[in-house]
Parts: sequence; structure tokens; C-alpha cells
Amino acid sequence: MTISNDTSEVIKSLIEKWQPDHVAILVDENTKKSCLPLLSYEDYLTIEIKSGEQNKTLRTCEHVWSELTQHQFTRKSLLINLGGGVIGDLGGFAASTFKRGIRFINIPTTLLSQVDASIGGKLGVDFGDLKNHVGLFRDPDHVIVNTQFLKTLDERELKSGFAEVIKHTLIADHAQWKQIQETTFEDQHWDEIIPKSIAMKHEVVSSDPLEGGLRKILNFGHTLGHAVESHFLHTSDRLLHGEAIAVGMILESHISVQKGWLSELEFEEIKNYIDSIYPISVQVPRLEDLMNYLLQDKKNDSNGISFSLLSKIGKCEYDIGVSSEMITKSLDAY
Amino acid sequence: MTISNDTSEVIKSLIEKWQPDHVAILVDENTKKSCLPLLSYEDYLTIEIKSGEQNKTLRTCEHVWSELTQHQFTRKSLLINLGGGVIGDLGGFAASTFKRGIRFINIPTTLLSQVDASIGGKLGVDFGDLKNHVGLFRDPDHVIVNTQFLKTLDERELKSGFAEVIKHTLIADHAQWKQIQETTFEDQHWDEIIPKSIAMKHEVVSSDPLEGGLRKILNFGHTLGHAVESHFLHTSDRLLHGEAIAVGMILESHISVQKGWLSELEFEEIKNYIDSIYPISVQVPRLEDLMNYLLQDKKNDSNGISFSLLSKIGKCEYDIGVSSEMITKSLDAY
Repeated sequence: MTISNDTSEVIKSLIEKWQPDHVAILVDENTKKSCLPLLSYEDYLTIEIKSGEQNKTLRTCEHVWSELTQHQFTRKSLLINLGGGVIGDLGGFAASTFKRGIRFINIPTTLLSQVDASIGGKLGVDFGDLKNHVGLFRDPDHVIVNTQFLKTLDERELKSGFAEVIKHTLIADHAQWKQIQETTFEDQHWDEIIPKSIAMKHEVVSSDPLEGGLRKILNFGHTLGHAVESHFLHTSDRLLHGEAIAVGMILESHISVQKGWLSELEFEEIKNYIDSIYPISVQVPRLEDLMNYLLQDKKNDSNGISFSLLSKIGKCEYDIGVSSEMITKSLDAY
Repeated sequence: MTISNDTSEVIKSLIEKWQPDHVAILVDENTKKSCLPLLSYEDYLTIEIKSGEQNKTLRTCEHVWSELTQHQFTRKSLLINLGGGVIGDLGGFAASTFKRGIRFINIPTTLLSQVDASIGGKLGVDFGDLKNHVGLFRDPDHVIVNTQFLKTLDERELKSGFAEVIKHTLIADHAQWKQIQETTFEDQHWDEIIPKSIAMKHEVVSSDPLEGGLRKILNFGHTLGHAVESHFLHTSDRLLHGEAIAVGMILESHISVQKGWLSELEFEEIKNYIDSIYPISVQVPRLEDLMNYLLQDKKNDSNGISFSLLSKIGKCEYDIGVSSEMITKSLDAY
């Protein structure tokens, strides 16, 4: 990974090293307009897909494979994914399976993808309503993080990414949790926060790349958050990923209160801070609306739905069984 | 890998070791009828797909993913692929990408898959007309070879698999090449030939799992063979894989003659033996009909179409450039 404000220079040196016979850049309509012009553009093939989680599908992958095929891409070619999590996950999956795998670079352009999706090699697409249901683990051949791209984001998008920053502090860094609360959202220092958040995730992931154990703490907020996200996916109330995770973190913190691990006061601190950032007005669904999604959570085993929960602020436990009653109570308390 | 005539016993011990929470067996209509009853059947989910290369598609994969999803399979579940190359390649790909990867066992039931597809971890599906265009490298968690299953095959199917045995002798084992010619096809000793052929392929693959170099020798006969196979895929003259490879081995041996590496006499020996096994009556296509397929060969780089060719009987070279004229001459000579 390179953290640099000169993306083009990094790309250039990687191409000199690898000598790919063809290069393509995968973009969506947003990154094509706002980010692609910031690169000193060489004679690369541009492949465009539609933005948004609803397009993170096998059909979109087939479009990418077709384009690569039509332009005679070989195993020695290179795909550069310029965009947020959808572009990185889908483009990475498409590259990893095209002719059984070609090189790819991820250039995350959103806060969410810079602090989260760019680390850990989780690639794939949604399948039906199920998020990231088809995919694999493979690290990009390189990741280039350029915080300049954040200026291309609107506030809602930026806040969505901030949910993962909040998550990283809650599960592993009590001091940083205090610190982000001392600054207003508008004045956060991205150039400091992002490397810290990346380093934290990187440490967890490298100790457990295939998510056999510790890595599961990164799923805090995601068990219920994903279910909420899936529930609203095809409605007009569709939430951004981080917004759904923000809801999930509140709900799952409440379960920690029920377990006796967090005090009511700590819960209020978490809820108040998250509420101050995210003006979310959706009606949180009932358990029966979420159950089908919860049962498909990738962390589950035959013992049922498994959670990663805060044991205190700054520490997270995984493989925690939670009863339906506890989930219902957390939904009622929202 | 286990070579055993008691498949059920091997499965049982693996299940005891891994303790999967769900088990499914992937079959086609043939292996459901002929092979599944030979297993002492436990309470596994049976997933059935249609046999044949024309069904080795993403659509069929989606059916497998749907079945696994509907039956609440988790990351701790197990898929057993019972069948030939299509079942093994497609089932392995489906398992490797379901929730980013679950365990799978391959039980190859054809000669072709026992000596070829079961070793080396090439998984995937066809994409449009392009064979194995989408896929990845991953070894099955276990392979069980049971030569008893060969009794369920008709002669054409058995001969198709024999093409890979012939290939293994031509590229790496001159003595074995002589030996298989001393016995009629009907009297070949499968219990001796199969372990030898598996060991040979295994040695090549383990020295070069991602096909950076030496492993390419296994593609002898496959550059033109695949193109011929693709050409006839959607016609009434559809060839079995091994039949197309048999044609490919004759054509590519002729290129070795043109290169001055094989004598006319050696070429005749190869052609006569292969012709004696395979009564192939199709009109071999012309270069322009094959070109589109040749250009998509996964071994290619920007230098053009790359071949693996016999330098003598029992030895093969890879990354050999071949002119269009030479290919045309070999097609004319067929």
C-alpha cells in the first residue's frame, strides 16, 4: 500500500515494474467525472459500470469480463479499480477470476473504501439480496490511498465512511474514540485519522487473514447493520453502507448493555455521538423482517447467529451467541 | 488425495475430521444414476445439474449457490463434487466463492477427470464460447480416486479420458508411450496407468502451481485442441474434450515436424496410434475459424499465440511462438 497524493506517479512506477500488456481502469459515472481527470491519463481502456450497491452483481461482473475479453486482455494485463467499495470489491473479484486471475490495483476514492474495503482482500459481489455472498479472499497487488479524492465526495458519502472509523475506535482504541469526539465532523484531520484507521485494520487482518477468529471483531455493528442494509436495499429508504452500520453499532451496543458489559452511560455516549453525526429517519425493522438476512450471515455456524460485541469501549469479543429476545429488545430500544 | 475403492469410508473419515454443519453432493443426471448409488448414502443434500460442457456456465453456478443458500449452508459446510471435469471444475469454483470459500471434495468419476482435472486446482466455468474463461486456482480439500467408477462409462467417454494419458506419455514418459501401444485399448490396466499418470501430472503441477512456466507443458495438444473443441461446441459435431485434444496433439506434433524437432516417422507413429483409438470423422476447421479462439488462449501474451510443443517423444518445450503459416500447414496435413 502507498499513501500518496501523487497517484499517477505510483501507477507509472508499478507499470514500469510489471510491464502489463494491457491496462484498463474501472470507473463508475461518478469517479469517471470527478476522479479520472485527476490522473494524468495514459492510453488505458476505460471500463464504466453504474455506481451503487444495487449494481454489485454478477451481471456487472460479466460486463467487465466481456470488455476485457473483447479488448484481448491476457493474464499479463492489469486492471485498476478507481472508486469506492463496490468498484474495489467487484473489480477485484472480476480481475481475480478473469482467466483464473490477473493483477489489479485498488485506488479507493471514498473514505469508506480507504479505511475499510482497501484492506483485507475481501472481494466479491452480492447475490440476490445477500451482500458479498459470492467472492473470495485475495489482496490487491497494490493499493494507493490518496486523501485528495475525499474532496470529491458529498457530506453524506463522507459520513458513511466515517462509520468505519468510529467502529475502529470502539473496538480497539479508546483514546482515539475520545479524540474524534473532541473535534466537529467538519474539522476532522483525515490525513491523521486515515493512516491510523488503516494501520489498526491491517494489524487485525494480518493476524487472521481468513477470518478464523480475531478478524471477526471487525464485524462489530455489521451483523445487524448488514441485515438493516439488505432490508432497505430495494426500497426508497435505501441507506448507505456506513449509515446502516451506524444503526447496527447502536443496536449491538445495546446488546452489550443487556449482557452487562457496557453501562447505560457508555451506551448513551455511543448512541448520542452516532446520532449527532447521522440524521437517520428510517423506521428500524422488526426482527422477523431481518431474520432471513441474519440467518445468512457469513459468520454463522450450526450454533446459530453469531455476533461480535463490545466488552467495553475499545475492546471487542467475537463468536458471541445472542438470543432472539435480546435482538428484539435492542430493536425496541432504538 | 486418496486412491481407494471404498469411497464411502474415506468420505466418512473426512467428515469425522472436519465436522461440517451441512453436506451436499453435486451430481449430474448420469452420476446420480450410476455413481451415487455406489456410495452408502447418508442424509446429504443432493444438488443436481445437467451434464455436459454446454452447462459449465455461470447460470449453473448460480443454481448451486442458490441451493446452498436455501439450505442455510455456512462457511463450515462441505460440498462433495461427484462427477467428471464439469462437475469438479464448476463445483469447485462454486464452493471456492460461496461466502468466500467453503471446503470441497472432488470425486472424479471419469478417466479424464481422474488423471487430469482432479490434479492442479484449476477451477471455473466457460464464458460465452471461451473455455474456463472465468475461474481461479484452488486445490480441493481432498480428492478421492476410485477406478471402479470407470465401469459406469461408455467406451467413447473412456477413450476421451485416455487422450490425457497419451499426452502425459508423449510429453514426459517415452517408456510408458511404448508400453501403452503394446496393449489394446480394451486391455489397458487402469489400476496401473492411473496412479502413474496422476503422479506425473502432480510432479509438474507442484513445481509450478500457477502456471508461470513448466506447467505449460501440460497444454500440449490443447492450444489447437481447445480451439477445435470450442469451434464445434454448439454444433451437432460436438467433440468430447479428449477427442478434441487427440486432434490437437496430431496437429501440434505436425508443427514439431515443421520445426525440425520430430521426424516424419515419429509423427506417423503418433498419428497412427491416435487415429487407431479415435474414429474422428469431423472436417478439421480452417485457421480463420479457429483464430478467435486461439487469440483468447490463456497462455498468450502480447507476443502472440504461444504453444507447448514436443521437442521429441517424451519431452515438451513451452512458450514457443508459431506462425500462422505453420498452423495452416498442420491443418492442411491433417
